[in-house]
Amino acid sequence: MDTMAKRYLSLISFTDALERLKKSAPSPARVETVLLDVAAGRVTAEPVYARFSVPGINVAAMDGVAVHSAKTTTASDQSPVILTDSVRINTGQPVPSSYDAVIMIEDVWEDGGKLVIRKPAAPWQFIRPAGEDIKKGDLILPRRHRIRAIDIGALASYGVPFVNVLSARVGIISTGSELVPLGITPFPEQNVESNNFFAEAYLTGMGAACTRYPLVPDDRDMIESQLHQAVKENDLVLLSAGSSAGTTDFTEEILKKAGKLLFHGVEIKPGKPVMLGIVDKIPVLGMPGYPVAAQTIVREFAAHLLEHWGLAPHPTYAMKAKLAQRLSSELGYDEFVPLTTGRVDGKYVVFPLSRGFGVQSALVRSNGYLHIPSSVEGLEAQQEVDVTLYDNPKVLETSLFIVGPQSAILHHLADQMIDQGIPLRCCPTGNLGGVLALRSGTCHAAAVHMPVLEENVLPDPFKVLKNRQVIRLVLAEQPLGLASRKEISFVDIREVPIINTERGTANRTLLDALLSRNHINPSVVKGYGNEVKNPDAVASRIANFLADAGISTEGFARSSGLPFFLPLGIDSYELVMRAETIKDPKIDTLIKTVQSSSFRERLSQSGGYLTKNTGKILP
Amino acid sequence: MDTMAKRYLSLISFTDALERLKKSAPSPARVETVLLDVAAGRVTAEPVYARFSVPGINVAAMDGVAVHSAKTTTASDQSPVILTDSVRINTGQPVPSSYDAVIMIEDVWEDGGKLVIRKPAAPWQFIRPAGEDIKKGDLILPRRHRIRAIDIGALASYGVPFVNVLSARVGIISTGSELVPLGITPFPEQNVESNNFFAEAYLTGMGAACTRYPLVPDDRDMIESQLHQAVKENDLVLLSAGSSAGTTDFTEEILKKAGKLLFHGVEIKPGKPVMLGIVDKIPVLGMPGYPVAAQTIVREFAAHLLEHWGLAPHPTYAMKAKLAQRLSSELGYDEFVPLTTGRVDGKYVVFPLSRGFGVQSALVRSNGYLHIPSSVEGLEAQQEVDVTLYDNPKVLETSLFIVGPQSAILHHLADQMIDQGIPLRCCPTGNLGGVLALRSGTCHAAAVHMPVLEENVLPDPFKVLKNRQVIRLVLAEQPLGLASRKEISFVDIREVPIINTERGTANRTLLDALLSRNHINPSVVKGYGNEVKNPDAVASRIANFLADAGISTEGFARSSGLPFFLPLGIDSYELVMRAETIKDPKIDTLIKTVQSSSFRERLSQSGGYLTKNTGKILP
Repeated sequence: MDTMAKRYLSLISFTDALERLKKSAPSPARVETVLLDVAAGRVTAEPVYARFSVPGINVAAMDGVAVHSAKTTTASDQSPVILTDSVRINTGQPVPSSYDAVIMIEDVWEDGGKLVIRKPAAPWQFIRPAGEDIKKGDLILPRRHRIRAIDIGALASYGVPFVNVLSARVGIISTGSELVPLGITPFPEQNVESNNFFAEAYLTGMGAACTRYPLVPDDRDMIESQLHQAVKENDLVLLSAGSSAGTTDFTEEILKKAGKLLFHGVEIKPGKPVMLGIVDKIPVLGMPGYPVAAQTIVREFAAHLLEHWGLAPHPTYAMKAKLAQRLSSELGYDEFVPLTTGRVDGKYVVFPLSRGFGVQSALVRSNGYLHIPSSVEGLEAQQEVDVTLYDNPKVLETSLFIVGPQSAILHHLADQMIDQGIPLRCCPTGNLGGVLALRSGTCHAAAVHMPVLEENVLPDPFKVLKNRQVIRLVLAEQPLGLASRKEISFVDIREVPIINTERGTANRTLLDALLSRNHINPSVVKGYGNEVKNPDAVASRIANFLADAGISTEGFARSSGLPFFLPLGIDSYELVMRAETIKDPKIDTLIKTVQSSSFRERLSQSGGYLTKNTGKILP
Repeated sequence: MDTMAKRYLSLISFTDALERLKKSAPSPARVETVLLDVAAGRVTAEPVYARFSVPGINVAAMDGVAVHSAKTTTASDQSPVILTDSVRINTGQPVPSSYDAVIMIEDVWEDGGKLVIRKPAAPWQFIRPAGEDIKKGDLILPRRHRIRAIDIGALASYGVPFVNVLSARVGIISTGSELVPLGITPFPEQNVESNNFFAEAYLTGMGAACTRYPLVPDDRDMIESQLHQAVKENDLVLLSAGSSAGTTDFTEEILKKAGKLLFHGVEIKPGKPVMLGIVDKIPVLGMPGYPVAAQTIVREFAAHLLEHWGLAPHPTYAMKAKLAQRLSSELGYDEFVPLTTGRVDGKYVVFPLSRGFGVQSALVRSNGYLHIPSSVEGLEAQQEVDVTLYDNPKVLETSLFIVGPQSAILHHLADQMIDQGIPLRCCPTGNLGGVLALRSGTCHAAAVHMPVLEENVLPDPFKVLKNRQVIRLVLAEQPLGLASRKEISFVDIREVPIINTERGTANRTLLDALLSRNHINPSVVKGYGNEVKNPDAVASRIANFLADAGISTEGFARSSGLPFFLPLGIDSYELVMRAETIKDPKIDTLIKTVQSSSFRERLSQSGGYLTKNTGKILP
């Protein structure tokens, strides 16, 4: 009896893979000539020399008058000298060869139409000799120099209208019968091809010239033919998807046939199925299809190779930060974990983001990543780690860092805060994640969904804040209830498969309270143990026939197209903060914004929110 | 008796100037729609929402088979279950609605054409419900978010082919009858217009749409007419040069006539004559002409305003570094000093670069700048300072930092070192500056010009290294001698005006030794006290009729077109390093490179160098 899995993976280490890549793919030394206007960010392919001397002739270094210094020697306050032979001259103007000094205009006086000076001029004073700045043929920029705006100014001054810069041609092939190009609205079972949009944007930003080829369906011959064209036209080829163990994953087979397979499978996460082939001397990287994996491979392999070839890396920021949560990782794998970073109490803190490879929307919330070397097995909470950020960490100084379940309510708030110069950086977690972060001082505020019930039930998350001085700022409330595809009452919950949410969520707290009140034992509720993260996912599951009912908000029930919603309680979405932070001017601005009529109006307009308690501060 | 200087400057503080600028120039809120391909680096003008849900339908999260979970409940190692109703499915493919779970392929076995499983499937396992990643209408990116490559991937996935981004129209006017556009070779008394090339490159890099208008001569009416056109077409206008006290500096007058002058003259260095006018509600910045000053004004005023309007700032790196030299600054002025930074012994060190405003070639050697606030009067050597770098300081980790007089020889060496992954960062100083840096541990190597004479003269710089264990690595030698426009012997030096170099230079040491040997008192030598920095400047001065003779190298005499050169000694260009650093692998590579035949050949080919001692190590 055989396993059905293709055993494609004889894994090699990440280090080994990079070495093989660089060794088997020497620099193509491709040079592109670009006009100076568009040369910023590119890397010089050769030294650049001045075309002429600057200044081209002796010029005045100051606004003033040109004189014979010998005729000024006797000048003093006591016996001013009247200039009999001089000429008015401006900064940068040629000094006529009959003069040998410039007196600056501040030291020249006028008396009855005559010019008078009160101190002598030294020979050659305030004259810039020809070639003082640069001489014809002098080096302006060395080879392999990344051209900055200040270099462009200098190149223009010295007469260089275009520059030879390093380049590399990268061919990008996307395979997959389910793909449609951007601009076409996909059928539900189709996807817009996007990894290669990322690859193009990322590698073009380094100075590569990328070609995205037409989408290729899962057809062995068509992929092969496209590959042969691409290796003819490029220095590096990326072949997206088809590297895994699906029935239509042909890449390994095609690479073996067309050239040589150097590796397939690397001890890296995400991106394990990456492969490298050499076809007609051109390196071909086979990439996995999941966005987070594909992006890791583009960054760690393709971009690494281009940088090795001399192209300019993307600007990133290396820093040390405190890890907010324990992070597991597998020994023997180099792991790259997207993260979000904030600055709280003068320290940088990082939260690892979901490593669910399919969830690209989480990636856009990240502002950097963490590389866990293969020799490390997990990192502890509060440990100091080295992280790489995409953006200048300076921005974090003025930001507020909010951890907890995300909501459109928070997006509305963030949109109003940014205009006051205070960006909100938000890290998505559950209710518990937020309050734990607040307790350990790794966020400015915890976002929480609080169930408002007739009974006074303290939701789980709040137990961890016992004895802490906190305040709760209500952002908005919304109806919470039983969402379903068929009309049911609460006690019918025993009859239909439901979907539940994690412990500590407002939904769960409400459900448990209602089950208890109705004397229903959770164990008889079908699906009680099936948990998703939030009421949005609950509504989604029901709408997609993966359950029949569940506790969600009225808004999500409606936006998921569920026809029935039985109101059972209220969800209050709040920010919890340490009481003493009210004095922080940023927190003060936050509170004032939440209490403003414009925020309330905005929520009302977007519909589905109850705003009567918005801005209320609870102890 | 009146001074001739226009007293244009009633200076205001830098802070005050920025406040007036921002207050009088509210954001134009200009929005541009760009295709996703070119959206990287731009800032969203509005929130961006998903056009459809992803996935659009329930899909497999793994390569495997889709099954009814209910039919798998009894499966175990002891009693495997044969799948009677299942379908092969790949990651991302839709799960037919008749199935409710996916079993991953690694857990499926084949036996006589039949599929067998050994453990049950939980309902919904490995199924990603429709909308799990994002739901139609969900927020992808908030407003005022700088778009990164990872965002572009997500935007493509979610069907967004173009984005509304913030922009600003910037009109750039260059005035000056001496200017020619890039591409035209200027006459010696002309200059290529370059500040505005810098301005365009810098502001375009932030997302502004720049228009450079045709060059305008120093004609009041023409400048005024160009200004009126520019304010009609832009949100901000830069008017280059004409802000100072020259006879053709019309800007203040024109601004007062066309609109309102808000300030002229700011306590900032360089860039003091900057002015701001408002014409037809559009801010107009009048900029000084010197490149360093113009660039400071573009960065600190124009870019500051654009950032205030929401455009993306250039990536820069803030860091703390040790100041290698004392730095004077004037109390009451905000000063911006270009600098060069290296990393030595695990510490960042910075050298301020020449603040000679006309010397743009020095600017391209800088990798950052230092802002000295107006309240600070000078900074001490070894003091820790906050600096801003243009490039990722990571590069400095692998670099060698060399301080001392620069030379084409060093450029040849740098060009060979970069291919070995070791960039040379060089900071131009005199001989003494290099050895002082070596003594204080602020460089890896000091570059020095050593005079080789018959007498054993220890050049001044070396006295500071007494009792230090150093080695000298000879790079190349070149003939040193008396350069002149007319043929003369050394003793004729008493008869002609010469130009000298600073104490501690090889030239000066040679000259003094020869004067002493010939019993000539320096005081009788006309021009002995007129000092320039290096033999290059000596040759330049003579060639430009600012002196008749001086000690220079044969190479500079020839490249300056001087007809006569009387050889009198040898200049040995060397790197001095602390003896113990030979063990450093980077230094080892440096020495091996200097000793390589390819380096020697390269020097020989470029001409003028003696290479017989190249690579020799002297104690």
